[in-house]
Formats: sequence, C-alpha cells, structure tokens
Amino acid sequence: MSVTRRQFGPVAASLAAVAAASPAFGQQTNEVVRWRLTSSFPKSLDTLFGASATIARVVGEMTDGKFTLTPFAAGEIVPGLQVLDAVSNGTVECGHTYTGYYIGKNPSFIFDGSVPFGLTPRMHNAWMMFGDGRKLMDEVYDGFNVVALPAGQTGGQMFGWFRKELKTPADFSGLKIRTAGFGGKVFAKLGAVPQQIAGGDIYPAMERGTLDACEWVGPYDDEKLGFNKVAKYYYTPGVMELEAVNQLMISKAAWSSLPPRYQMILKYACSYSMTEMLASYDAKNAVAIARLVAAGTQLSVLPDEVIKALRVALEAVLDEEAAQNEQFKKILANWRQFRATQHRWFSIADTRADLAVFRSDR
Amino acid sequence: MSVTRRQFGPVAASLAAVAAASPAFGQQTNEVVRWRLTSSFPKSLDTLFGASATIARVVGEMTDGKFTLTPFAAGEIVPGLQVLDAVSNGTVECGHTYTGYYIGKNPSFIFDGSVPFGLTPRMHNAWMMFGDGRKLMDEVYDGFNVVALPAGQTGGQMFGWFRKELKTPADFSGLKIRTAGFGGKVFAKLGAVPQQIAGGDIYPAMERGTLDACEWVGPYDDEKLGFNKVAKYYYTPGVMELEAVNQLMISKAAWSSLPPRYQMILKYACSYSMTEMLASYDAKNAVAIARLVAAGTQLSVLPDEVIKALRVALEAVLDEEAAQNEQFKKILANWRQFRATQHRWFSIADTRADLAVFRSDR
Repeated sequence: MSVTRRQFGPVAASLAAVAAASPAFGQQTNEVVRWRLTSSFPKSLDTLFGASATIARVVGEMTDGKFTLTPFAAGEIVPGLQVLDAVSNGTVECGHTYTGYYIGKNPSFIFDGSVPFGLTPRMHNAWMMFGDGRKLMDEVYDGFNVVALPAGQTGGQMFGWFRKELKTPADFSGLKIRTAGFGGKVFAKLGAVPQQIAGGDIYPAMERGTLDACEWVGPYDDEKLGFNKVAKYYYTPGVMELEAVNQLMISKAAWSSLPPRYQMILKYACSYSMTEMLASYDAKNAVAIARLVAAGTQLSVLPDEVIKALRVALEAVLDEEAAQNEQFKKILANWRQFRATQHRWFSIADTRADLAVFRSDR
Repeated sequence: MSVTRRQFGPVAASLAAVAAASPAFGQQTNEVVRWRLTSSFPKSLDTLFGASATIARVVGEMTDGKFTLTPFAAGEIVPGLQVLDAVSNGTVECGHTYTGYYIGKNPSFIFDGSVPFGLTPRMHNAWMMFGDGRKLMDEVYDGFNVVALPAGQTGGQMFGWFRKELKTPADFSGLKIRTAGFGGKVFAKLGAVPQQIAGGDIYPAMERGTLDACEWVGPYDDEKLGFNKVAKYYYTPGVMELEAVNQLMISKAAWSSLPPRYQMILKYACSYSMTEMLASYDAKNAVAIARLVAAGTQLSVLPDEVIKALRVALEAVLDEEAAQNEQFKKILANWRQFRATQHRWFSIADTRADLAVFRSDR
C-alpha cells in the first residue's frame, strides 16, 4: 500500500453532467455515468479488492459499458480506513469498505459488519432481507449521508495468529493484538491491548514485535500477508467472526443522481459480488489451509474456557454500549432476538446435518 | 395445483420479433422482449415459486420494464416435472425448476441439484464459480439445448416425515417414501420403495396411505403442505440434502436472441433470486419449526447407524452410476475431490465455529 495518493477533484462536475442528461423517471436512459470507487483494501488481496473489480465489470456488462466505475485501491485516492468519510462528504461517489472500521463514529455500524458470536452469512442475509435489519441499518447510514449496498462477504474468519500458545483467558493480559470491529472491545475486557490497523501494515508490526497476535480473515489472505512467517499458532474456531459483510457505500447525492434503472443495476451487481466473494474465499481457503499446515503452521484449538470468557465479555460489551446509546440499544434488542431464533434453527438443521455428513467422511 | 392448463403457442413469433429489433452486438438496446417463464412449483409456495416472481421483478427493474418475464405456476402451461422438456423443445422460452427431476434423462443433472452427503450451498457456489462445476455442468445442459442459470437455493433440507419411528436401517425395508433426485436410489438400496411426485400431490398420498413417509424441503413449506397432519416424526439431520439448487433453464434459441446486455441482466437477476430464496427459507424455517413442535410434531434424531448405512449406500449408487456413464464418471471424480477439500476446511473453520457459538448460547 505504498501507492502515492493521487490528486482528485470533487464529484460535483460529474454529478451535474449526469443530472443534465437524466430523463424523467421510468424512461429508458442511455446516459453515460462515470464514477470512481475507492476501496479499503489493497490490490494484492484479490478476494477483498476483487469485489470492486467485479462490481465495475458487472455494471458494465448490464449497461453496455455506459455506467463505469473505476476502482482505486486503499491509499490511491483515499486511505483504507477513511472510505466512509470520503463518501459521506462527497469527495468520491462510492467506496467499498467494512463497517467495523467506523464504530468510533457510530457503534451501531457493527451490526452490518460482524458481531462476535453473532450471525453467519446466511443468517445476516435473512435478517437484512426478511427481518428488520435493512430498515434499522438504513437509519444508521442515513446519519452519514450514504446509501449502503451489501457487496462482499468473507465468511467465517479464523480466530487469528499467535506467537505464543493461548491456554487460559489470563493469557490475554497485556497481549498486543490486531483486530477490527467489536473484537477489540472484547479482547480489551480480558486485558488485551487491541489495535486496528490496515491489512498491509500488520506484517511489519508483527515482525517488529509491536504486535503479539493478529487476525485478518483466513488462510488465503493471511498467507499472502505473510503471517505464517511471524507467528506459529493459528487458532480455530473463529467465534469472533462467523461472517464479515462488506458494503458499497454511495454518497446520497450521487445515488439520487442515478436513473432508477442504474440504481437497481448497481444494487444487483453488488449482490452478485457478495456471492462471488464468499465463493472465492471458500474455494481458496480450503486449499491454502493445507499449504500452511504443510509449511509448519500449528493449527490450534481454542480452549472451551477461553471461548466461554470471550462470550461473557462480548455480552457485557454489548450491554454497556446499549446503556449509552439508544439507537444501539434498539438494534441490539432486535438483533439478539433474531440471533436466538436462527442459532436454534441451525442447531437443529443445517449445522447439525453438515457435521453429520463430515463425520461420515471418515 | 388444480389450475386448468392453458392453451399456448410456440415462441417462434416472439423470438422473431426480438431478432428483428436486435442491433449489432455492443450497442445500447431499447427493444422490448416478452417471455413466459414456467415454474415447477405451485403458487402456494412463496419460497420456491417466489423465485420466478423475483426474477421477473428484478429484470423489469433493470430494464425499465422493457424485458418482461411472465411466470406461470406448475400445471398452468406446463406440468411441474416437465419444465426441462418444454424449454428444451422451445415450447416456452424459460422455466424455473430443479435438476433432480430429470436424472432419468441424464443422471449427471444431479450434480447441479443436490447430491446426498454432498455440498452445502456455499460449497456448491465455490465449485461452480471457482472450481470446474460450471464447465462440467454446461456440457450436460448443452445436450438438452438449454442454458441454465443458478436461480434458487433451499439450503439444507430436513430428512423428512415418518409415520413410524426409524430405528435401524432395516426399517427402510418396504417403506413407501416420497423423495426426489438421488435420494430415491439410495433409499431403494436399503429396500425402500421411493416415489417422485410433485409437491402438491404428497399430502393426499400420505393421507390415503399410498406413502409411509415423505420429504419435501423444510418446516415452512412442509407445514403449508400439511405433512404434520399426516405424520408424527420429523427427522433431522438432513444428510440427504445439505442444499438444493434451482435453475432457470432457457432455450438456447431464446438465449441467443437476447442482446448481450439482457443476457447479463437475466444472469444477475437469477443470482439475486438465489440469495433471496435462501434468506427467505432461513428466516421462515426458523419460526415454522417452533410452531410445528408446539403443535405436536415430534422432532427426532436419525440414529448414527442409519446415517452410516445411508452413506455407504450413496457411495455405492454413485460408483454404479459412474460405471455405466462416462460423463457421470468424469464429473463425479472432480466433484468428489472438491467435496473432500471443502468438507475438511469447513470442519476446521465455519462449521466448527458456528457450533462453538451455538453451544455458548446456553
């Protein structure tokens, strides 16, 4: 991520051009729209950055190339962790990012990213599409002047890389660990010192010893980022992130300037990118884990006692946040109820069946 | 499904109209395209039939209503289990169906539907998008003159409804059971008498005693179809169907007549319908199961011995099929390798993590 930051002007000119060309609603439109799309992720990660490229390609395919999105990697025009700000203030039309990076601005963002001990990708989609998730989260995005479309999903993430074995909850004491989102708050409750830094900055920090442990996503990305060279123990199960959704955040002015047809095309292109990213991770992680283990990584299982302590800490963190924030409290109540119903159902059905089938493989 | 079958003409006229209006490839097109879409499912099932409605709506949204698909329920213009034939011979432009219904024509269809002890929805997408699934399955569809787009996913299905308890593999002997796809071949190996009948015909057959047991999908659909009134035991885990994909099958002539932009719009609309259907099932099944249990359904767990016998029978069925059919043999080898890698990875990651989180709920 050493790319020089390029100069760029405001989007006002391109928006005005679009507005002038826009016909009345409902008419077939032929206008050319050119947007820039800034990503939170480096080009080297074809999984995460790849979603931006996919959205651009798919929108082009559905508009005969009339609506173009030009993706920029983290740091090219906007730093990786400042995508929301750049979109919110209209510096760029849209950006591909992870809501967990912005919980300092509004903790409720986390519900559309990844809550520890939370929802799986399927449960999240169910909450957004057939529960109250969409309505509740739109109220959050409204406050930042952005429209958000789900546009990426990593699936379950590994618990992370540790230089020393993790045997009891006391081992978190003083541990300098890289994480994002609410994971940091949970680790802090157990005495750790969490740090949220961009993907490309983790390896050097691990190498220098500024970090004792880190988590990013899973085997495929983690191998690319070199974590196996600076830590031995790779922990599962990834109870802190059963999923992580990405969003395409769009400035409201830019969104409103689009003909309705282009809005829909963008929405469904983003939906496809979510399916594709998850498939990409699942295909690639399954192969990368074998490579890592063959190269000496020690696959390790989190002790039950540690999982229990993390769960207790998580629920305390959620309750504390709710006590200070009405919006968070409202979303949390809805989300917890949905989570309980979904966890119960998957315990009876899919998860139980998947496990029974895996066992019958032996 | 008592709807009278309507008269309908060939699609030649509408295809010719489209062809006449088609500009050179790559040009922006404004032409009107009107297609009929025949479904394998009854209107009463908002989950399965709903995908057709969603595809039609989404295509309309992305074309300002210029490309219209009119969905027809099973039996309205084509019987539910004859969708492939109707599309293949050009009677209708496209149809929404399940490949498992057509394994009598080509057993390889099953790999794009649901193989017992097979892939989950995520694994299936990974195989299709980042493995060899798309290429291998396209060779199958080519033989029937159709293009298939993934357009629906039920998620994991329950094992099914039984009037008597299922205690040992011997209990399959003589059992008259409704199922679809390869499940029937597996049950037959254990001495059962499988029957593949359409969704709406199952309840009367159970009531009359023509059937002893049945499976359709899961709590939400099964409750609508009334199975809880004619059988007491509802078995999990659903090892016979960790997923079931639906397809939009399109006649090749109709597909070729579309401008490239419309082809892509149809493809991504189908992708969205897949995500939506799965979310719909997950949201609704989670609530329906509680209703069923409260109303007296006995949720029952399949004995390990039965699961083991089913697994052995399944692999034997697959090997026998491969011995008779080169195409099946080629796909099976590829699919088995992919399955092994995916099962191993999910055992380490997502499934293990999901289970650990569910356990911490208590």
